[in-house]
Amino acid sequence: MSLLVVGSVAFDDLETPAGKRVNILGGSASYFSLAASRLHPVQVVAVVGEDFGPDQYRVFQDRPIDLSGLIRKPGRSFHWKGQYGQDLNEATTLETHLNVFADFHPELPEPYRAASCLFLGNIDPVLQLDVVRQMSVRPRWIALDTMNFWINGAREALLEVLREVDILLINEAEGRTLTGERNLLDVYRQVKTLGPRILVVKRGEYGVALFTPQGHFLAPAFLLEQVVDPTGAGDTFAGGFMGFLASAPDTDLETLKRATLMGTVMASFTVEQFGTSGMQALTDNALHGRLDAMHDLIHVAAR
Amino acid sequence: MSLLVVGSVAFDDLETPAGKRVNILGGSASYFSLAASRLHPVQVVAVVGEDFGPDQYRVFQDRPIDLSGLIRKPGRSFHWKGQYGQDLNEATTLETHLNVFADFHPELPEPYRAASCLFLGNIDPVLQLDVVRQMSVRPRWIALDTMNFWINGAREALLEVLREVDILLINEAEGRTLTGERNLLDVYRQVKTLGPRILVVKRGEYGVALFTPQGHFLAPAFLLEQVVDPTGAGDTFAGGFMGFLASAPDTDLETLKRATLMGTVMASFTVEQFGTSGMQALTDNALHGRLDAMHDLIHVAAR
Repeated sequence: MSLLVVGSVAFDDLETPAGKRVNILGGSASYFSLAASRLHPVQVVAVVGEDFGPDQYRVFQDRPIDLSGLIRKPGRSFHWKGQYGQDLNEATTLETHLNVFADFHPELPEPYRAASCLFLGNIDPVLQLDVVRQMSVRPRWIALDTMNFWINGAREALLEVLREVDILLINEAEGRTLTGERNLLDVYRQVKTLGPRILVVKRGEYGVALFTPQGHFLAPAFLLEQVVDPTGAGDTFAGGFMGFLASAPDTDLETLKRATLMGTVMASFTVEQFGTSGMQALTDNALHGRLDAMHDLIHVAAR
Repeated sequence: MSLLVVGSVAFDDLETPAGKRVNILGGSASYFSLAASRLHPVQVVAVVGEDFGPDQYRVFQDRPIDLSGLIRKPGRSFHWKGQYGQDLNEATTLETHLNVFADFHPELPEPYRAASCLFLGNIDPVLQLDVVRQMSVRPRWIALDTMNFWINGAREALLEVLREVDILLINEAEGRTLTGERNLLDVYRQVKTLGPRILVVKRGEYGVALFTPQGHFLAPAFLLEQVVDPTGAGDTFAGGFMGFLASAPDTDLETLKRATLMGTVMASFTVEQFGTSGMQALTDNALHGRLDAMHDLIHVAAR
C-alpha cells in the first residue's frame, strides 16, 4: 500500500497583502507530500535543479516521504512568481520559468509502479498519462488535478488521461471551462462521461463540493482568523484527501466525506502561513484539534 | 407568541438568464411571510397601492398571515425592476419606484405590539427603529436585514437601530462594508460591538455562515438542478429562519443551526422559480424531503 504523487517541486516568489517571500519551496508535489505524509507514506516523482540543496531536502526528511523518484538535473528548478490581490481568490502569474521542468519525463522507480494510490498533480496531461502507463498494477485510486492552461491548450491529451482517472479535483471555474456547464450537478454529469466517477470541486474560501455516485457532500472551508497565502491550498487539500484514502480500509461515501474534511483542515494550515511553513510546523495535536473544530462547525443533530 | 415582519410588499419586473417576468408580486415582507407562515403565524406591516388587488391578496389567504397591518393607500405600490447576469450573484437595479412606499410610516395594530419575534426587513433604518419603539414588550428575538444603500446613506440611524437588535442578517459584501473588516471572524467581532450578538452572513450560492457567542455554523446552499431567479432568496431565508425560531422552545446554538438549515431549504425553493411562485407551490412533503436531503448533504459521522 503506497501513495504516489507526480507533480512539481519548485521555488516560488510570492506577494500577498500579508507580505512578500522570495525563493521559497513550492510546487504541487511539495505541498501534496508534506500533507499526505501525515497520514500515509508517500513516493514522489518530480524533477529539481542544482539550486535544490540540503535546505530543501531537509524539509522532507524525517517524514515517510520517499524521494528516490525526485531527480536532480543540471540547471535551475522550476520557478514561479505570483501575486494575490486583497480578495486572495486568484493569483496573478508574474513569471514562470520552467527550467529543468521543461524536459521533465517522469520515470517511475520500480518500487513505485505498484502504488495503490496515484495522484497526478497539475502538470502536462501527456506526462500524467505517461505515469499512468508506467504503473504495473492498476491503483485502487487514481486522482488528477488540472488547470485552465491544459484544459484550453492540451484538451485532447487531458481527455485521454481523464479516461483512466477515478477522481477529478478541479477549481469551480475550471470545472465549468472543462465541461461547458455552469450548474455543478451538470458539471458532474459531464465529468462522469469523461471518465472520473468522483468529482471534487474546489471553491476556495467557500470550501469543497464532493460528487459521487452514492451521494454528494458539501464542506465549507475552515473559518480562519487570517489567510496569509493561498498558494498550495489545492495541493495540500489533495494531500490530505489522498493520504486519508490511502490509509482508509473502505472506499465508500463516508470515507470520501472524511477524506474531504481531512483535506479541508490540512489546507487551512497551509494558507495561514507563507509557502509550506504551515505544513512544516503542523503538529498532530493541532491537526486533531482542528479536525474536531471542523466537525463542530458543520455538525447539526439528525432531524 | 407571534412573529411580526415589517418590510416591503411590491411589484417586480425581473430579467434573468432564464427569462422575464413583469408586474409579479415581490417585496421583502411577501417572501418573508410566505416562508415563515409554513412554520408559525405571521403578522405583516407594510403599505401597498391601489394596484394591489384580489389577485395579490389571494396569495396570502388560507395561510396564517395576518394582513391587518398591510395598509392600502391611494397611488401605486412600490415597483422594482432588476436584471441578473449569467452568474446570478448580483442584481442590477434598472428602476426603483417607491410610489406609496415613499411616505410609509409603519403603524402597528395594537395586537401586533406584543409580538414575541420581530423581523425588520430591509427598509429605512429610521422606520425599523420606529417599529421597535412601538413594541409594548421587548420581543424574544429582534432580527434585522439591511443593505449597502442604508449602510452608506443612513449609517447613524442604522447604528441606532442595531443597538436594539439580537440578530443581524446581511450579505457578505455588506457585512464587510458595515464593519470595514474583511475576515468574517473580524466582521462578527465588530458586529457584536454594534449590538447584535448573533450574525448571519448570507453568501449566495455558497450558503450561510452563522456566528453566535456559543459557536459558529457553516451551511452550504442546497445543490439545485437549476437556479431561475435569486430574487427574494435572502428574505425567504429570513422567513424560514425566523419562523423556525418563533416556533422553537429553545434559543440555543442547536436551535439556531436548525433555523439556518430551514432558511436555507426554504430559499432553495424560491430561487427555483420566478418571484414567489416557489413559495406558493411549496408542499409540506417537498419541504420535509428537501430538509432530509440537506441533512444528508452536510452530514458526516462524528470522529
